Amino acid sequence: MALIVQKYGGTSVASVDRIKSIAEKIITFRDQGDDVVVVVSAMSGETNRLTALAHDMMSQPTPRELDVLLSTGEQVTIALLSMALENRGYGARSYTGTQVRILTDSAHNKARIKEIDGTQIHAQLEQGRVVIVAGFQGVDALGNITTLGRGGSDTTAVALAAALQADECQIYTDVKGVYTTDPRVVEGARLLFSITFEEMLEMASLGAKVLQIRAVEFAGKYKVPLRVLSSFEEGPGTLITLEENTDMEDPAIAGIAFERDEAKLTVSGVPDIPGIAYKVIGPVSEDGIEVDVIVQNVGEDGSNDITFTVKRAESDRARAILDRIATALKAREVSQDNKICKVSLVGVGMRSHAGIASKMFKALADENINIQIITTSEIKISVVIEEKYLELAVRALHSAFELGDPENGAGSSSA
Amino acid sequence: MALIVQKYGGTSVASVDRIKSIAEKIITFRDQGDDVVVVVSAMSGETNRLTALAHDMMSQPTPRELDVLLSTGEQVTIALLSMALENRGYGARSYTGTQVRILTDSAHNKARIKEIDGTQIHAQLEQGRVVIVAGFQGVDALGNITTLGRGGSDTTAVALAAALQADECQIYTDVKGVYTTDPRVVEGARLLFSITFEEMLEMASLGAKVLQIRAVEFAGKYKVPLRVLSSFEEGPGTLITLEENTDMEDPAIAGIAFERDEAKLTVSGVPDIPGIAYKVIGPVSEDGIEVDVIVQNVGEDGSNDITFTVKRAESDRARAILDRIATALKAREVSQDNKICKVSLVGVGMRSHAGIASKMFKALADENINIQIITTSEIKISVVIEEKYLELAVRALHSAFELGDPENGAGSSSA
Repeated sequence: MALIVQKYGGTSVASVDRIKSIAEKIITFRDQGDDVVVVVSAMSGETNRLTALAHDMMSQPTPRELDVLLSTGEQVTIALLSMALENRGYGARSYTGTQVRILTDSAHNKARIKEIDGTQIHAQLEQGRVVIVAGFQGVDALGNITTLGRGGSDTTAVALAAALQADECQIYTDVKGVYTTDPRVVEGARLLFSITFEEMLEMASLGAKVLQIRAVEFAGKYKVPLRVLSSFEEGPGTLITLEENTDMEDPAIAGIAFERDEAKLTVSGVPDIPGIAYKVIGPVSEDGIEVDVIVQNVGEDGSNDITFTVKRAESDRARAILDRIATALKAREVSQDNKICKVSLVGVGMRSHAGIASKMFKALADENINIQIITTSEIKISVVIEEKYLELAVRALHSAFELGDPENGAGSSSA
Repeated sequence: MALIVQKYGGTSVASVDRIKSIAEKIITFRDQGDDVVVVVSAMSGETNRLTALAHDMMSQPTPRELDVLLSTGEQVTIALLSMALENRGYGARSYTGTQVRILTDSAHNKARIKEIDGTQIHAQLEQGRVVIVAGFQGVDALGNITTLGRGGSDTTAVALAAALQADECQIYTDVKGVYTTDPRVVEGARLLFSITFEEMLEMASLGAKVLQIRAVEFAGKYKVPLRVLSSFEEGPGTLITLEENTDMEDPAIAGIAFERDEAKLTVSGVPDIPGIAYKVIGPVSEDGIEVDVIVQNVGEDGSNDITFTVKRAESDRARAILDRIATALKAREVSQDNKICKVSLVGVGMRSHAGIASKMFKALADENINIQIITTSEIKISVVIEEKYLELAVRALHSAFELGDPENGAGSSSA
């Protein structure tokens, strides 16, 4: 007898048949005696269809009206899923964001949840009904419909789980859970039994995009046990928890994340004076370009190299900005390298395990992979390398840290 | 400077282009300085698409969930029309039934409006915005989404006009207004400049289905001036008013309505005892069959003939019921005629003009059309005749009452 919040995304509710099979999945939980609150997205393709209609009306649709329009997508799904359950003899009731009263701020298209009223949901659960809530949407204090932005249904689910004090929040996706690394790159990538919120945030932001970062942050903040699992295959998925696995045998590393399509820009020979980094990075950020890794080296001659990475698609724009400001900066040279990538080891165990970094560098050196940049945080070590070595580097690290071999007892989990 | 409520149906908002041209129409009123509140239906085809999805889920969709589903249709239209106006530089704001707070009872799929809160709408109008309201939907006291049933957008518009004390409620359709009779039957059918609510109710229920009867009743009750006009062509349309045209020259007749696909059933030779009509009609009505004209004649021998009409599609079911109860009724005979139709003269002027009935009967006799049944009300005379005479009868009456000839000064209006 647990209270479970489940979230199903657009591909899980893409058709009448898929909605019916989601209903069957919910029914297995009901039959076990669990109380179930379900959050659903719009049927896949629907949000794009509505967005296209809006753009037929005006190039920049009025944000308030766009929310009125887009929120219909989830409203359709909640009604259909509710009917699918009722058709099987299971009581169900649908709620829009307005009806639950998922109170948000008034930032249309990217609203943030402020408060959720759980009264009605609890009342329905007590009457034995499944409660189905429209994801991605809320209502502001004035009664205007708001949306949380793309992927916001994950956030809705986590916020609801927090408000209802659910025992678990289950996010159903098209993957079986979180892997040690991308299984398309490393054949032996292993499904993690559990991962901490911090690790998950680093894995997600580094490219293993299973969950919306906001939802993970939210779950961490409110201590909601979060599980990622597949809509289409059976399996326990991956549990995202607060607690670090304290098993002595537990390895330091949870997984390996990577980012393709990066580019590196270097401004060389700028004077070593206070504020120089800001003078280089500032104009780039202000132009809306996301800057990732930043390193600064002061040479013996007192001059300075500042290197940073950006998305490859934005590197030419960044380069143009640097060329424009180079003279004012008294820079010797601006250079650009579009053929790089970033590979990161992630694991809370790094805090207590020594020698992780040197083991990483040795594994890469053994493959003759040259490291161009190194950055570290408490639970992550990232290296920037030539793009052509990406797969080789990930496989070498996966093997060196024995992430793929549970038999050996060296895996990070016992899934 | 008037406050106008306009309603546009599904075909008027069927596509992006049509929504844009509706926006232009609204703009002409704004440019004249009028305040405009617009009620829209779902884009044509959308309600059917959603209904089909619901039926894929269950054969009899849960009424509450069906309302959650169907109400999205109008919600899409209000957002798009609002964007179309904003794109042209005219302030606009959309409201769902819940957002306005169109309070209804809880009879899902066929809810009735109880109260409308005009506060927000007035506030938006004062700020110079066009207010766009989703038709056909409301919210019950518990916050559940309700719908008024098909065609309910007309009712929304009239109810809003009443609540806002609008100067006029304009219903835009795909016809130019209300005609003296169906222009497909009588080439010279003339657009009426005005018609009273009572006449409109008789015209509508008798087959000239331009407006939902409920909306007309509502408008009459709350004294809302109602105008029917075309979305696609310019023109003043037809005004539906409380006041009878008191012009001395005004004819008695507003128009000629007719009903095809009727059938007549007669139970002959039943005893002339109290309650016999109920014993005949009761079982038919209780089976959900709509009974229209009813006449009873007592013969000199004290026996009784009871005749009534039903929709032809239901006549066999009605016949089977009569056959079953004939013995208990001690009826001599049950007979059925599927080849009849009904033609009606409608006009409030009948009250003060003598000789209308005899003029009608003469016109039909001149064409050798035999009248099978006559029924009269204060503002209507209906005859049941053989179906094959329908067009002939309508044309003969249209001509006899000079409905089609404004030159003659005998038309009911001066459009």
